[in-house]
Amino acid sequence: MAQIIESIPNISEGRRQDVIGACADAVRGVPGCTVLDVQSDASHNRSVITYIGDAKAVEDATIALAAKAAELIDLNHHTGEHPRVGATDVIPFVPIRDCSMEDCVELSKRVGRRMADELHIPVFLYEESASRPERRNLADVRKGGFEGMAEKVMKDEWEPDFGGRTVHRTAGVSVVGARKPLVAFNWDLDTDDVRIAKNIAHVIREKDGGLKDVKALGLLIEDKETGRKFAQVSCNMCDCNVTPLYRVTEMIKSEAARYGVRVTNTELVGLTPAKFLINAAEYYLQLKDFDDSQVLESHLL
Amino acid sequence: MAQIIESIPNISEGRRQDVIGACADAVRGVPGCTVLDVQSDASHNRSVITYIGDAKAVEDATIALAAKAAELIDLNHHTGEHPRVGATDVIPFVPIRDCSMEDCVELSKRVGRRMADELHIPVFLYEESASRPERRNLADVRKGGFEGMAEKVMKDEWEPDFGGRTVHRTAGVSVVGARKPLVAFNWDLDTDDVRIAKNIAHVIREKDGGLKDVKALGLLIEDKETGRKFAQVSCNMCDCNVTPLYRVTEMIKSEAARYGVRVTNTELVGLTPAKFLINAAEYYLQLKDFDDSQVLESHLL
Repeated sequence: MAQIIESIPNISEGRRQDVIGACADAVRGVPGCTVLDVQSDASHNRSVITYIGDAKAVEDATIALAAKAAELIDLNHHTGEHPRVGATDVIPFVPIRDCSMEDCVELSKRVGRRMADELHIPVFLYEESASRPERRNLADVRKGGFEGMAEKVMKDEWEPDFGGRTVHRTAGVSVVGARKPLVAFNWDLDTDDVRIAKNIAHVIREKDGGLKDVKALGLLIEDKETGRKFAQVSCNMCDCNVTPLYRVTEMIKSEAARYGVRVTNTELVGLTPAKFLINAAEYYLQLKDFDDSQVLESHLL
Repeated sequence: MAQIIESIPNISEGRRQDVIGACADAVRGVPGCTVLDVQSDASHNRSVITYIGDAKAVEDATIALAAKAAELIDLNHHTGEHPRVGATDVIPFVPIRDCSMEDCVELSKRVGRRMADELHIPVFLYEESASRPERRNLADVRKGGFEGMAEKVMKDEWEPDFGGRTVHRTAGVSVVGARKPLVAFNWDLDTDDVRIAKNIAHVIREKDGGLKDVKALGLLIEDKETGRKFAQVSCNMCDCNVTPLYRVTEMIKSEAARYGVRVTNTELVGLTPAKFLINAAEYYLQLKDFDDSQVLESHLL
């Protein structure tokens, strides 16, 4: 049973395939590290590289990735809608197997220290690794973006955790930390009235008094093939052990029903641990006394 | 990526723990073989031992198990409700990973040959390994039981595939073959009228014109703790790729509704590959464009 840590860095390049490929290859070049997925978004000008390995392999791969991104990406010439502060913008570490959250926190601190020392990129620790409460939330750390960072780090409360107050001229700063597995999940509605999706998002998200560990937005989506527009509830499920997929699904269906609206389909974005889907099967099939060890593959890992 | 074959032999002993333990230990003694589960049923006087490994490990473990069972179990003194023909009654091989059905058929023939040569136990091949159509179905091969076997093997059409016509004096014969993963699943109803469960079983099972690859029985179950009696639809799902769990569940709910009866809960017996549960989540969550590679663990095996 080998230790498995997942890392999902976001780099600030979603258009130049040679740059994205070189960054992914930097990860692939580290023995014991496996790249699972590379997803690029041209309009956000941003890519997500997913890889797994043990703590040492993931540490080395992350440094190699950050070095390559710093070499090839200049944020002074970056355009894109998504907020960002660094060439390697955010680096989450997620415990998957034979690994505690504390192991991932320690890993994030080693990576932060090395990025500062070896690459001269200041690092903020966030989420479970945060050194102060106001740094837990990524959006708060990233507020002001690359353009506002030189000024922000001069504030008393925003000195980076590693690397001092000199923002890297082209690569900015990075936000590094440990977090639970995040599941990105969307619910499409049979309406083009985005207000309905926004109302549902408002009801279900934790911030406004809804379900714990759920972040939600109401969006209007245009199907690229058909041109058809439809409303979507787009969620980040930050802890499916606390708020499982089925509960959000049933609440969205129930809230949509008051408008005479139905869920037409859902979408899982990226990867999820099997247990979060099996948990939905357990609910809908009304399984009693189910045990994870009844899943054949649980004995193979 | 190592090859994984699952074997689930049924031995004709469900009461003497020392015998059951010795048989499981015979499997554990073979390097590369992992015992996942040992389930015994005292009233059936029968145990199911589940193990996995590559073809060579599973072959050696199965021979070691059959030798130990033949040494310790005498069918002349066996009592129990369940039909049986051998000390090691039936030996299925199931392809799980990096393995074709044909690989498992070949494995079953090697095991059958060795049981005949080394242990003097005649063997019938069944299911995917069957040498004739009338030997595919286990119930047909087993018909007549241990007591009727000496006479049965003398018939033209019932000469064993290996080992000739001399039934082993104490260990009987064995039925060996390759098959798809079988999922044993029960649906409990909020009624004690077993006729309703029998009617539903009749409607859903393939034999009577229902769903493909589904075997079903209606049973009256007594809860051992509370003494409460309830009707149950008990199924063997012989190919969940063809008829998935959700479809049977929805059909049972719909048939039960005509009697004003509901499913109170369900039960998975033993093990299942993760994909059959994930498939249910896919249906009930209305997942669109879901791909197995979105399951994190699919990259770890």
